[in-house]
Amino acid sequence: MDIGKVDQEEIAARVKRLQSRLIQEGVDGFLVTQHVDLYYFTGSMQAGYAFIPAEGEAVFYVRRSLERAEQESAIAVEAMSSLRGFRAQLAGGHPSVFGGDVAAAGKPIKIATEMDVLPAATFAKLAEITAGGQRGCSLIDGSSLIRSVRMIKSPWEVGRIEAAATVVAEALDAALPILKEGISELELMARIEYEMRIRGHIGLMRTRSYNMEIMTGMLGSGAAVAMPSAFDGPAGGLGLGPAAPQSASRKTILRNEPVLIDIGCCIDGYVIDQTRTAVIGGLSDELAAAYAQSERIIRHAEQLMIPGTACDAIYAASLEDAAAAGLAGHFMGFGTGQVKFLGHGIGLEVDEWPVLARGFGNPLEPGMVLAVEPKFTFPGSGVVGIENSYLITDDGCRQLTKSSEGLIVL
Amino acid sequence: MDIGKVDQEEIAARVKRLQSRLIQEGVDGFLVTQHVDLYYFTGSMQAGYAFIPAEGEAVFYVRRSLERAEQESAIAVEAMSSLRGFRAQLAGGHPSVFGGDVAAAGKPIKIATEMDVLPAATFAKLAEITAGGQRGCSLIDGSSLIRSVRMIKSPWEVGRIEAAATVVAEALDAALPILKEGISELELMARIEYEMRIRGHIGLMRTRSYNMEIMTGMLGSGAAVAMPSAFDGPAGGLGLGPAAPQSASRKTILRNEPVLIDIGCCIDGYVIDQTRTAVIGGLSDELAAAYAQSERIIRHAEQLMIPGTACDAIYAASLEDAAAAGLAGHFMGFGTGQVKFLGHGIGLEVDEWPVLARGFGNPLEPGMVLAVEPKFTFPGSGVVGIENSYLITDDGCRQLTKSSEGLIVL
Repeated sequence: MDIGKVDQEEIAARVKRLQSRLIQEGVDGFLVTQHVDLYYFTGSMQAGYAFIPAEGEAVFYVRRSLERAEQESAIAVEAMSSLRGFRAQLAGGHPSVFGGDVAAAGKPIKIATEMDVLPAATFAKLAEITAGGQRGCSLIDGSSLIRSVRMIKSPWEVGRIEAAATVVAEALDAALPILKEGISELELMARIEYEMRIRGHIGLMRTRSYNMEIMTGMLGSGAAVAMPSAFDGPAGGLGLGPAAPQSASRKTILRNEPVLIDIGCCIDGYVIDQTRTAVIGGLSDELAAAYAQSERIIRHAEQLMIPGTACDAIYAASLEDAAAAGLAGHFMGFGTGQVKFLGHGIGLEVDEWPVLARGFGNPLEPGMVLAVEPKFTFPGSGVVGIENSYLITDDGCRQLTKSSEGLIVL
Repeated sequence: MDIGKVDQEEIAARVKRLQSRLIQEGVDGFLVTQHVDLYYFTGSMQAGYAFIPAEGEAVFYVRRSLERAEQESAIAVEAMSSLRGFRAQLAGGHPSVFGGDVAAAGKPIKIATEMDVLPAATFAKLAEITAGGQRGCSLIDGSSLIRSVRMIKSPWEVGRIEAAATVVAEALDAALPILKEGISELELMARIEYEMRIRGHIGLMRTRSYNMEIMTGMLGSGAAVAMPSAFDGPAGGLGLGPAAPQSASRKTILRNEPVLIDIGCCIDGYVIDQTRTAVIGGLSDELAAAYAQSERIIRHAEQLMIPGTACDAIYAASLEDAAAAGLAGHFMGFGTGQVKFLGHGIGLEVDEWPVLARGFGNPLEPGMVLAVEPKFTFPGSGVVGIENSYLITDDGCRQLTKSSEGLIVL
């Protein structure tokens, strides 16, 4: 278990970064409720709530397992009382936030929490509980605070992502020999998943968005993977039926059709995301040209990925590159199925900040990790493209993906 | 894809059952937002919202993919306008709820939604949008309405759960030959998962509870699986580290220690949940006796599971049975790690209603499907037990689990 344990200083630095943001925004504290955020700020994913005051010591209030939280957590751990008694427990632990002397000031307390993931019923209950004091308390949305703090990765986190990159690369190499004409998408995906799992993949890539599921990526072939889907990505796939309407289907893989292998895994909590395109035989000229263009777009993006470049500028450049090749209508999906981004942050979740999309004018910063995935969709024929993950460094970017590049021709 | 497609009459009956509950409770309509609930009430899991008025036609407002929703949905499908325009679209589609003539009555509209899963931020946005009309509108919690409607399964749904039971049974049989001294828990679990996946498991068992993850169950051996955990179940397991602190670990499986194989899968959206205990060599007398007692408890529960029996009475009986064998302190976990239930509903999610627990006084009804899981935890030694899933019939219960029973001795 030691490999996954997060050290004290790492956690202390994360807490401090959140605290300085809280002070900046005039927020008195953060009530952390989501298991992934709890892991990020405590080093433990046991059940409970962590309270991080703008100033002072953070405490992890644990429902279960207290014993494991005490082993894992880098911040103070306390057994959580009943939910009814939680307000009093917070007041006792954080008198500078909830205590009597500040009450004199008369200003209501402002506590942030993750309204982007916390269910409305639990939010309402927590708002009622925290409001219990004399000063009153408003529970506000701190989703963007959390997301912006988590957006910048530490060297330790980059190491975890690289470990995940190694697992995906090894798993793909181990599974590819079974890719032969006549096997199903599901058979290929199941084998890749097995190879990732025995190497330590936790079983799913966690997501932040409501209703979004990506256990191990999106794999599909020919017309099936070019189907439009609910998934907010360029290629959702056909899936196993209406109750699992994305990724691998039972469709048989044929000669001369592209096989899109968009896969990832989660090692020690951190995900990687990559795409390679394979074909048994060869691609049509049209698809081969589109694949080549996807490599050109990712090369161009690599040049642009330096600290200071605005995220939307990289997306805009990719749109221009696609249009220049006469492929604007096929880029990142087709027709109403087109999605409006080129890449996305990855870390503990697969849908992190920043996003390479219109409207994201914020500049790249060292420590960001992004998956960049130019793809072209041809209804009835398939999807081709490439995806690598990158760390933004002080003067450019460094590729974290380890699989060799180029169309895989079998 | 035809196997998974839900027929029109099935969906119509579900919508009608929700509608009669809405009328009973004086609620004007239900705004369905969660992907699993959308699948249940439309037959499609595409992205969007469904509106089910207390009286009148239900409509699925789809963001993407409209094309797939039109193929899959058994209720009317309409392209969803922008979120800003959604209030007007609802008013146009459901004048009897949102329309002007009823406005004269002056009573604010009451719309239910799934506050148990819907994130607080989206809830707040939807509340703001729906409040836009002249009458005003309050968005209230309809979680229990949904859960109680989904609690009673149709014969078609039971068929899906039985299909999942067959897959788990086949996968366990196919994987068991690799269970030898010296392999790791992870190797065994990865193989079981592979065997389920190639048979159509969608990759995870969906859950309703915040922060709960159960991809394929909980597998563990000896002292590792007896560790307390955050998981709200009798045996969470050690897991792969603090970022995945449950189920299989890298621990090696030894002779004469129990291997708890609590596994499930999801076929066509429906889950099954079962537990078998295995051992290489033999169990100590203490563990063997506890295992035998778990079988006695499940036999007793089978006798009690007839329509009309209160859920908490079955839980109480299991506590008595455990105490009678001198095992009260080991039942369903140990010490502060004990959980306070014997079984739980399963269906599209693994944590459905009803729950066999104190405080659940509601009587069993035909059509309920429950996983019943008596287990005994011995810190330092392991967990033993059994779990079967059952359908409540008109005059008793029918076992859906297909794996043969008894301790698996290798």
